[in-house]
Amino acid sequence: MSSKSIKVFSPATVANVVCGFDIMGFAVDQPGDIIEMKLENHNKVVIEAIYGDEGKLPLDPEKNTVSISVIHFLKHIGIQCGVSIKLHKKMPLGSGLGSSSASTVGGVFAINELLGKPLNKIDLLPFAMEGEKLACGVAHADNVAPALLGGFVLIRSYNPLDVIKLPAMDNLYCTLIHPHMTINTKDARAILPNTIPFDTCINQWGNIGGAVAGICMNDKSLFTRSLQDFIVEPIRAKLIPGFDLAKKAAMNAGALAGGISGSGPSIFMLSENKQIAQNIGYAMQKAFQEHALKSTLYVAQINYEGPIILN
Amino acid sequence: MSSKSIKVFSPATVANVVCGFDIMGFAVDQPGDIIEMKLENHNKVVIEAIYGDEGKLPLDPEKNTVSISVIHFLKHIGIQCGVSIKLHKKMPLGSGLGSSSASTVGGVFAINELLGKPLNKIDLLPFAMEGEKLACGVAHADNVAPALLGGFVLIRSYNPLDVIKLPAMDNLYCTLIHPHMTINTKDARAILPNTIPFDTCINQWGNIGGAVAGICMNDKSLFTRSLQDFIVEPIRAKLIPGFDLAKKAAMNAGALAGGISGSGPSIFMLSENKQIAQNIGYAMQKAFQEHALKSTLYVAQINYEGPIILN
Repeated sequence: MSSKSIKVFSPATVANVVCGFDIMGFAVDQPGDIIEMKLENHNKVVIEAIYGDEGKLPLDPEKNTVSISVIHFLKHIGIQCGVSIKLHKKMPLGSGLGSSSASTVGGVFAINELLGKPLNKIDLLPFAMEGEKLACGVAHADNVAPALLGGFVLIRSYNPLDVIKLPAMDNLYCTLIHPHMTINTKDARAILPNTIPFDTCINQWGNIGGAVAGICMNDKSLFTRSLQDFIVEPIRAKLIPGFDLAKKAAMNAGALAGGISGSGPSIFMLSENKQIAQNIGYAMQKAFQEHALKSTLYVAQINYEGPIILN
Repeated sequence: MSSKSIKVFSPATVANVVCGFDIMGFAVDQPGDIIEMKLENHNKVVIEAIYGDEGKLPLDPEKNTVSISVIHFLKHIGIQCGVSIKLHKKMPLGSGLGSSSASTVGGVFAINELLGKPLNKIDLLPFAMEGEKLACGVAHADNVAPALLGGFVLIRSYNPLDVIKLPAMDNLYCTLIHPHMTINTKDARAILPNTIPFDTCINQWGNIGGAVAGICMNDKSLFTRSLQDFIVEPIRAKLIPGFDLAKKAAMNAGALAGGISGSGPSIFMLSENKQIAQNIGYAMQKAFQEHALKSTLYVAQINYEGPIILN
């Protein structure tokens, strides 16, 4: 077993998806982390190296999301084995693109593959959620579940955990822009209201129903016209200088819909072809430049597989 | 034109569907109203007779939902013609089964058929909503839209009106029980809270997404386990003596899920076969008897057509 190794791509994710705060997310085919994992003769989980994090992430396996899911997984299946990990961070940290989820999902997916798949993919979710808990303090599933399962995922319930993989949609491009600034997830939560007016709730859940129906019925018009948020986006948009301008620019460039990715500052915009997706990106970059913000641009498609084995 | 006549069945409906307050509803194949309509040589809309209402409904065509939709329809298409209506109320009034919707939908459906379908079915909705407005003071669509379109309907948005007919589900039976008491819709609205805790919202919209996904994916387990209401049912249940007992009895008799139909007092319960649906009904009747309430029982399937021409 000792020479067995694997290389895995684990996708970035867009949580919330405008109207589905805490209950919806989807995976994209880029960016994503690359995790190299090897079974070793010792019996510890070791992070050998991390690239692309500018030295920000801990090498202590108990403190890194890429390894904590592996540790919990090994404990659960009752196997003591040596594991070494090289983590290539291929996406910005704290950007609202599910960076910690990509790492933790990639880790647990890789070890499960290396050991001959003792568990089904869906059963890896609790271990990946441990990684998310380490990173965010709370075991949210709206990044972890789509990163693991791919595609559009609904978290129907947290207690008990009930995760639904929704059907695939045709020809959907996702422009992701990461303005170079940071938003602390805890701060982004702290500014949310404690209560919501009942009428606003009704508007919001009409859109949630519409978004889910749109995905399930492969109706892009229904899906994208449902992506309106009466609750969270109006508040969180204020944390991102230039958000309104960038969103307007994206819509003018042909975006179907979009909004803040996770708790931001990244923004996602959906469209129907690659050229439009690219144009949307340029338009948003220009808008952020007017606010003296540099940005990184990704033009992606939906990832429907979750993590992908590269070797 | 003067001798042309039509006889139409227009279905009862279950609005809210537990978690989808104001945005979801479905139609059943019984009970329902029967509307007889004739084109006449005069140029007025006249209600000739109403049966089964115990004299409670007005014969004045401006004040009855069955005719007001017809009047608005005729005004819209610019035809002055004589219409006589016989309305057979085949369901209890004010019972939470969409009685006024069935009448108003039946009326506008019948006149559109008699005049050779100048409008598409979906375009009849605004006229039917006028009938609902007359009956309830507010133009809700969660009874009217499923009565008109059949099946499960989502009201994604009221402004602009965006009504989505969801796909059909296999083999679903609906037990409807009407305990003999009345709940005023306005009272049932007045006791609802003005604001909802954010955490409760998240639980609720997880279930809304789950219910819609369950319908669209023809996944009865997902659909029915999503039928939990954290907001409205816990409050409104108190208006129906014996609600908790009846619901428990229904679940023990094999119901998959269910709750208050519309604003009550009727209760709907879903199941997978006719015998179970019947048993659920008997179990609920027994429960209401313990609260000294007589009740009327209907065992129905989902109506997927909306109004049906009988002659």
